[in-house]
Amino acid sequence: MELEQAIIVRADLHMGKGKIAAQAAHASIEAMLKADKSDVEEWRASGMKKVVLKVSSKKELLELFERLKKKFPVALIKDAGRTQVEPGEATCIGIGPVEEKEIDLFVKDLKLL
Amino acid sequence: MELEQAIIVRADLHMGKGKIAAQAAHASIEAMLKADKSDVEEWRASGMKKVVLKVSSKKELLELFERLKKKFPVALIKDAGRTQVEPGEATCIGIGPVEEKEIDLFVKDLKLL
Repeated sequence: MELEQAIIVRADLHMGKGKIAAQAAHASIEAMLKADKSDVEEWRASGMKKVVLKVSSKKELLELFERLKKKFPVALIKDAGRTQVEPGEATCIGIGPVEEKEIDLFVKDLKLL
Repeated sequence: MELEQAIIVRADLHMGKGKIAAQAAHASIEAMLKADKSDVEEWRASGMKKVVLKVSSKKELLELFERLKKKFPVALIKDAGRTQVEPGEATCIGIGPVEEKEIDLFVKDLKLL
C-alpha cells in the first residue's frame, strides 16, 4: 500500500508557474486537512508523494470533483482573484492522501501537468 | 496585520510546472505545520495568502534559509529525486504563515516566480 495525494489543475486558465504553485499548495493543504489523520501521518513519514495532473476545462474539473467527493477527501479550490484569474474561479482540486491504486482508477486517463 | 506564506523556489533547476507545484505544496505543508497554530487558523480563515518567489542558485536558497530560520517557521524541501532532479537536492523553502511586513524585510529583493 502506498499513499499519495493527487492535485488536478486546469490547464485552460494558462496560469503562470507561480500561480499554479500557490493554487496547488492551497489544494494540497485543504485536501490534507480533510483526509484521515493516520493516513496523513503515514504519507508524511513516507515522503508525501504527490502527482500533479491536468484537465482542459472547468466542466471537466467540476465533473471530476463531483465523482471524487463521493469516495475521497477532496478540496475544490476557488481563487481569491487577486491576480491572473477571475475572483471565485475554480482552479484545481486536491485529493487525499489516499491509497494510490484507488485514486488511479479515477485519474488514470489524465496527463501530467 | 496580514498573514502570508512565502514559498521560494530555485529557478536554476528548470523544473516543470507540475514538479514545481508538487515541491511548493510540500514546502507549504511543512512550513504550516511548524507555524503558530493560531496564526495558521487566522491565515486559513482569511484566504491563505501565498507569494511564490524565486532564487537563482542553491547557494542563494540555503543562505536565505539560514537567515530565515532564526526568525520564522521555515521548511527546507529536499526532493525525493524520483524525477527531474537529483535525490536530496534542495528545491525550495516554505515560510510561515507569518506577518507579511516581517517577511517582506527578508524577501523584498526577490522576484515572483
